[in-house]
Amino acid sequence: MLHLKSDTDDRWLAQVDEDLESVLIDHAHCEKKAAGTALNLMFAYVEDLELCREMTEIVNEELEHFHMVIELLDTRGVAFRRLTPSSYGRRLNDLLRKGEPGKAVDRLLVAGLIEARSCERFSRLADHVQDPELVRFYRGLFESEARHHTTYTRLAKHFASEAEVVARLDELAAAEAEILASSDDPPRMHS
Amino acid sequence: MLHLKSDTDDRWLAQVDEDLESVLIDHAHCEKKAAGTALNLMFAYVEDLELCREMTEIVNEELEHFHMVIELLDTRGVAFRRLTPSSYGRRLNDLLRKGEPGKAVDRLLVAGLIEARSCERFSRLADHVQDPELVRFYRGLFESEARHHTTYTRLAKHFASEAEVVARLDELAAAEAEILASSDDPPRMHS
Repeated sequence: MLHLKSDTDDRWLAQVDEDLESVLIDHAHCEKKAAGTALNLMFAYVEDLELCREMTEIVNEELEHFHMVIELLDTRGVAFRRLTPSSYGRRLNDLLRKGEPGKAVDRLLVAGLIEARSCERFSRLADHVQDPELVRFYRGLFESEARHHTTYTRLAKHFASEAEVVARLDELAAAEAEILASSDDPPRMHS
Repeated sequence: MLHLKSDTDDRWLAQVDEDLESVLIDHAHCEKKAAGTALNLMFAYVEDLELCREMTEIVNEELEHFHMVIELLDTRGVAFRRLTPSSYGRRLNDLLRKGEPGKAVDRLLVAGLIEARSCERFSRLADHVQDPELVRFYRGLFESEARHHTTYTRLAKHFASEAEVVARLDELAAAEAEILASSDDPPRMHS
């Protein structure tokens, strides 16, 4: 359902155990960036009314999640701060084709893969962490990230045939798995 | 309350009469841009939690307004489309100081002045147009734009003293009035 080509490995869970605080702070930044991605997609393809409606909903949900993470940090006495992002987002964005409509397809599929990976990691985190508040938190985010993945993949079909979208998703998902497998980033949501 | 240095003149209302359709389409683009401005401010000053909370609310409200305008266009059979923006936003952004914290103050005050001008124009439009649906529409937007102006001006005081903010707002408001007075743009929300 999530179209991912790999499962998150124990290396990443060890990073989480080593520095949960950074993973949580990075998570807040990711939610904010996800809102920005959705708004930028709306700006770029504003004639597509279904896309606009869906992006509005995603912007609202990601900002709501951002505040949930901020609040969680606050209750744990962790100050929210700037943090060098992992190379994941940049490396995925390097894969976008330059010309339309391929660019639109790729932007939507990459946004969808990031949601899928977040979803998969929230699920692993919920099984891994001991703290019941964190378990609830990660389980609570799982469903909406999965839904966002489905929305992005569906919208990509506004710009290319079903077969083209499926084939491109397959390529991008393989690249996504490779990017994570070769990551040497410090502990982050997508390290 | 709105800190504007001029009232919208009859020249603009004549432009509205001449091409209401373009003003409505531009209005939708303005709501979308207002959401983008608020999100960018949140990205830039993410350590300021009150600012983040307020920007989230503004993003949500502006996107809601965007959809209200889109729906209004739809009921009138007007297709939403790209449109060259007026020079207003660009000329206002040219006034921003480069270094912090002056840049933060200016970004917030300029965002607040754009809200103030929209508010003033919605009020003039509500008195000017005959169509009861449009009258209700513009009156409905008045309050939130006024509130956004107040929010932006208050947040500017996180980055400079009250006296500095008041003095800078005075300067920027004078420049804003001058920009509109010298506009030779086609019919737009801020022509």
